[in-house]
Amino acid sequence: MGKLGTPSGTRDFGPSQMAKRNFIFESISTVFKKYGFRQLETPAFENLSVLMGKYGEEGDKLLFKILNSGDFLKKTSAQDYEAGAQQMLSKVSDRGLKYDLTVPFARYVVQNRGELTFPFKRYQIQPVWRADRPQRGRYREFYQCDADVIGTNSLICEAEIIAMIQEVFSKLKVEGYTLKLNNRKILAGIAEAVGAHGKETDLCVAIDKLDKIGQEKVNIELAERGFSQEAIAGLAPILGLTGNTSEKLQQLKTALASSETGMAGVEEVEKVFSYAKTMGLQTDNIELDISLARGLNYYTGAIFEVKAPEGVQIGSISGGGRYDDLTGVFGFKDMSGVGISFGIDRIYDVMEELDLFPEDSQKGVEVMFVNFDANCEAYCLPLLQQLRAKGVEAEIFPDSAKMKKQMNYANKNNIQYVVLAGDNEINEGKVTLKNMETGDQQLISKDLLPDQF
Amino acid sequence: MGKLGTPSGTRDFGPSQMAKRNFIFESISTVFKKYGFRQLETPAFENLSVLMGKYGEEGDKLLFKILNSGDFLKKTSAQDYEAGAQQMLSKVSDRGLKYDLTVPFARYVVQNRGELTFPFKRYQIQPVWRADRPQRGRYREFYQCDADVIGTNSLICEAEIIAMIQEVFSKLKVEGYTLKLNNRKILAGIAEAVGAHGKETDLCVAIDKLDKIGQEKVNIELAERGFSQEAIAGLAPILGLTGNTSEKLQQLKTALASSETGMAGVEEVEKVFSYAKTMGLQTDNIELDISLARGLNYYTGAIFEVKAPEGVQIGSISGGGRYDDLTGVFGFKDMSGVGISFGIDRIYDVMEELDLFPEDSQKGVEVMFVNFDANCEAYCLPLLQQLRAKGVEAEIFPDSAKMKKQMNYANKNNIQYVVLAGDNEINEGKVTLKNMETGDQQLISKDLLPDQF
Repeated sequence: MGKLGTPSGTRDFGPSQMAKRNFIFESISTVFKKYGFRQLETPAFENLSVLMGKYGEEGDKLLFKILNSGDFLKKTSAQDYEAGAQQMLSKVSDRGLKYDLTVPFARYVVQNRGELTFPFKRYQIQPVWRADRPQRGRYREFYQCDADVIGTNSLICEAEIIAMIQEVFSKLKVEGYTLKLNNRKILAGIAEAVGAHGKETDLCVAIDKLDKIGQEKVNIELAERGFSQEAIAGLAPILGLTGNTSEKLQQLKTALASSETGMAGVEEVEKVFSYAKTMGLQTDNIELDISLARGLNYYTGAIFEVKAPEGVQIGSISGGGRYDDLTGVFGFKDMSGVGISFGIDRIYDVMEELDLFPEDSQKGVEVMFVNFDANCEAYCLPLLQQLRAKGVEAEIFPDSAKMKKQMNYANKNNIQYVVLAGDNEINEGKVTLKNMETGDQQLISKDLLPDQF
Repeated sequence: MGKLGTPSGTRDFGPSQMAKRNFIFESISTVFKKYGFRQLETPAFENLSVLMGKYGEEGDKLLFKILNSGDFLKKTSAQDYEAGAQQMLSKVSDRGLKYDLTVPFARYVVQNRGELTFPFKRYQIQPVWRADRPQRGRYREFYQCDADVIGTNSLICEAEIIAMIQEVFSKLKVEGYTLKLNNRKILAGIAEAVGAHGKETDLCVAIDKLDKIGQEKVNIELAERGFSQEAIAGLAPILGLTGNTSEKLQQLKTALASSETGMAGVEEVEKVFSYAKTMGLQTDNIELDISLARGLNYYTGAIFEVKAPEGVQIGSISGGGRYDDLTGVFGFKDMSGVGISFGIDRIYDVMEELDLFPEDSQKGVEVMFVNFDANCEAYCLPLLQQLRAKGVEAEIFPDSAKMKKQMNYANKNNIQYVVLAGDNEINEGKVTLKNMETGDQQLISKDLLPDQF
């Protein structure tokens, strides 16, 4: 046996991490449910025909492939072997671990289109796997936590996503984050308005660097990417947008007046803000960011991103957007949907760094009975069951080990109260109840013990 | 694209199945936590060095192996290819999907032995994967739901497992099940007592058929398995044990008097029963079954099994036992542990067949607002957010679609109440609240709506 451990890029989650992770999962799923999303789970692996080609060439490489069972070479020939891994792959592997929750969701929707009622609102909290090079904050196995509604164009859904984001982070006590909003149609409109129709990808890559490298260098990059000097000159006022969101929208209306698509994008953003206001949502921390372009080839309308609070070097902690053709790749056309994904690992890191996990989420069981001897066991076991019958989390140390060992167990497991019943207590029908945090002890009648919890 | 579906032997769980499955998961994890078990999660895949050789030769074959990333052939040669899959395997795959929760748990304990406080009580609810041939009730991906305590010999743990089993099935309202109990030492003692020392595996396989094929055929089988006629004759009274558990134990004390191991097993069973009685547990439905032998090579003390209620042809729905050397295979000796595993899929089937899922677990969101038009949206969205602020699960139909479509959505999603606000209601500051189950409608002031929930 070599050194024992989990495979590179994967992790165990022990009890205290699980308690914190569950706090995040439960907060998010409570919000999802409150907004009418219902849970779906799909298998860990899918047929490769479902997964391949959905994440680009790079994505195909990052899929974990499962070796066919039994004689996995049976469909191969010596020529295949000579031709190499690329040639062999499709003959030795039919299945792969899922890379995200979105493609299996799309497969589920198409497969069950006859039985589902649309709009279909689902949430899904499951691990996904990517054969990426592991590094700080990047794992080969990690949870995604998604909610999507599919089968409606209504912008109420966008406003509800904003509401859910705000409610989730409010529950988690994460403050000072920025919710960035953009619309793919605005990006397309900008490209159109400067005479670079269809070049919004290049545009975004360049704009994205504005903060880091400055306007001049961005202009050079744009020229390299084939933008005309005229287009670049036309971009300047648009990239220089200032003010709050409604001021920015006013300026965009002028700048994009010539682009139907661009104007439609502006209108959509206005409508989303209008719904958000009607719903009574806080809109001050929502920032229209025309450089926001997450997964551009995928989104067709709204684009969302949540940036971690300033001072925490963690970046994006949530993101999503609207896509008009998620299921088209499986032959089910014209199903518009919009979704949001919470980045559990990064949210965990933010909360850890800002010390936001409630004390409760780190507590062990409430009560431990110390085990002195068989006599003590006989006295305590019925009391233990009385507490459990009341729903109290309680245990007895299973062996009559040394006191020091038992108290160490209670400490290490963050147990809140310890019950001691030595011969004296037993003779008097009492127990000593010790508060492990304060150290306070009280001697009480054993019949009164359940009332303490 | 061929036919779209999940890989053979795997399943999607849609919203209504998830609601029921979560009801089972939550019931079980609540009990685990109440008894002081804390949650652990391990990765979906492990290094094959951890998994191989732990489940026998057949088990090794049933492991799903993950193809190494990139040029997976790079460690192989043409000779390896000619030699076949067996030879190639270890060179193209370093990792496998986990086959159960027990071996990864043992790996975790050994890896973290320096930081863990013993006894260590953990529960784990995660999927596992086996490349078995799929058939009714047997899947390639299924959840296991285990609790184990490791690092103590105390028989209190066995009694607590009985308590947890009873509490779980009581929560799930599953009645009429049988809790079977045996002890590996009794099995060893029986073999010893009839002069067939160490042959308890053969003994069990034969005894197990007693019900189906009768004593005579069992005797023939025993002879074939090398039991002497003397041994077979000696077995008759032991196999013919009758009466309740304490009567059976008395008879065993006579029959096994010559076997130290056997007598130790009898004593352990007595001690477990004694603890169970002290804890006030119901012991009538616990049956000492000396033919019970689940995973014999693994268990060293108590063996548990729960049989589904009579009339439901489902078999075992839970099982477990004590093992003295779970972590020994990873070089950490003398750690005794005892555990229990609940079979989620079978419990689900039992509950489905007996119609035991509470109505609650099948309900959708509580309230849906019908969407008539923009005016209605503006009126209802603030009300919707008021309900959500109270924690009520609520949604608005996102589009002003036909009434029939919206009501169909409410019905299909088991929504309990529908709120209607047409022009009349809006003008009067009211809403119509419709109970979808009874069909009752009431017209109420919009300000009173939140009080209804």
